[in-house]
Amino acid sequence: MDNRPIGVFDSGMGGLTTVREMAKQLPNESVVYFGDTGRVPYGGRSRDTILRYARQDVAFLRTFDLKAIVIACGTVSSTALAELSAEQEIPVFGVVGPTALRAAQVTRNNKIGLIATKATVRTGAYERVMRHANPMAETFSLACPLFVPLVENGRTQPGDVVIETVVRDYLSPIRDAGVDTLVLGCTHYPLLTEVIQNFMGPEVTLLDSGAEVVRQVRERLYASGHQAAENRRGTYRWFVSDTTESFTELASRFLGRPVTEPVGQVAIERY
Amino acid sequence: MDNRPIGVFDSGMGGLTTVREMAKQLPNESVVYFGDTGRVPYGGRSRDTILRYARQDVAFLRTFDLKAIVIACGTVSSTALAELSAEQEIPVFGVVGPTALRAAQVTRNNKIGLIATKATVRTGAYERVMRHANPMAETFSLACPLFVPLVENGRTQPGDVVIETVVRDYLSPIRDAGVDTLVLGCTHYPLLTEVIQNFMGPEVTLLDSGAEVVRQVRERLYASGHQAAENRRGTYRWFVSDTTESFTELASRFLGRPVTEPVGQVAIERY
Repeated sequence: MDNRPIGVFDSGMGGLTTVREMAKQLPNESVVYFGDTGRVPYGGRSRDTILRYARQDVAFLRTFDLKAIVIACGTVSSTALAELSAEQEIPVFGVVGPTALRAAQVTRNNKIGLIATKATVRTGAYERVMRHANPMAETFSLACPLFVPLVENGRTQPGDVVIETVVRDYLSPIRDAGVDTLVLGCTHYPLLTEVIQNFMGPEVTLLDSGAEVVRQVRERLYASGHQAAENRRGTYRWFVSDTTESFTELASRFLGRPVTEPVGQVAIERY
Repeated sequence: MDNRPIGVFDSGMGGLTTVREMAKQLPNESVVYFGDTGRVPYGGRSRDTILRYARQDVAFLRTFDLKAIVIACGTVSSTALAELSAEQEIPVFGVVGPTALRAAQVTRNNKIGLIATKATVRTGAYERVMRHANPMAETFSLACPLFVPLVENGRTQPGDVVIETVVRDYLSPIRDAGVDTLVLGCTHYPLLTEVIQNFMGPEVTLLDSGAEVVRQVRERLYASGHQAAENRRGTYRWFVSDTTESFTELASRFLGRPVTEPVGQVAIERY
């Protein structure tokens, strides 16, 4: 039994789709969330910049007494998990490993698609884990840089010609390659599940990296006896690096519920 | 006569559309350009964050011996020009003043539209100058947050259903209001001139804030005898805060010519 909170961070607000999964799969766990809204997006930045930012994000979270850290950001998970893990004595979970393993297991025709930010695709991290777990797997990776701004501007509905055109332009080569499994390797993409599923067809399995990492966290917590008491409800604390004024509206969209808890602003460069 | 370079900065690459205007209107002037690609975009950030970033950008540029600074960024110009001007002993030019003045002059029906980032619109800086210059002017302001990512992803061509739909969705209220003058208050927007002009109709005058600030710089340099010698061609130096690897391709698009000069990377947080 361990009631200490779990720290979750992301380059911005997208990681709240992972917190939404935690609320669903691990309702007893408390969460401290940090979204680096002052420096978002990480996706197009260099390896050195991403690593430096991620270390500051973790340093801020460690000002709380945590039992684990979840990197909700695909870019950071694929770029900096090894370094961050080595530097922390509490477990650090990234989205790449569990999602790639699951993709390697659920595919029937060994053709797996991955869509993510440029930085995540560039690292090749997903492909490496998938090939280790399933040497027969063929992977088709693609950066979809317009998905994040489109999601943040509410262009997520089936029937919207803008998102449907962009989805078709990006995903046609992956669909034509015949993948039966598609990894949504960026926290924003679950909000596009319906449009993407419609385009790819019902026979293609979409995997949400947030749901997969939370499944892994859940297994590890229970296996090690570090789950929170079952008679409590988790509490949530929110922190961002830019102004908090616009947090609530966008956060509610990602979280799937109104945000009622207070939000703090963090001068992240000082960590 | 004054052959010292002019410093130009922007939150990213968009300011290169202003440098393109300098090459056209002031071919003898040398330029040191800094694009804060490691922290782009500024448009959605808080006033404090924008001011802090802008001071660092200026501090880096002042490591060169400059005769003037041009803020190519609409967000910084509308948020921080007064502070930056007061702190520097060389002239600091912003895009808002000259563009708003010109809009106030060229309108015939006193209805002026402004499209820009959220931060620029929020400050009300354009409206204030326009109303001072033309108390009859009615202004219609609108943030168009999807334009920047669409431009950066090459969605700028007439006939592209994505950009044409987004342009129509954003600009319909402004067109319906009957404006005869439209200010493109963000450095990325000149790349959308054709699509926007097609939608607004030929009777609407589009004003590019980069072209307007360069016109003002030109007037001031000649009036004060600080123009560069006419027998020389200006030289260009490029600096960015993120990796330089992807600079050349995107820069060429904004600059309208291949980028052949070397590009330096700057640790901007240290300034």
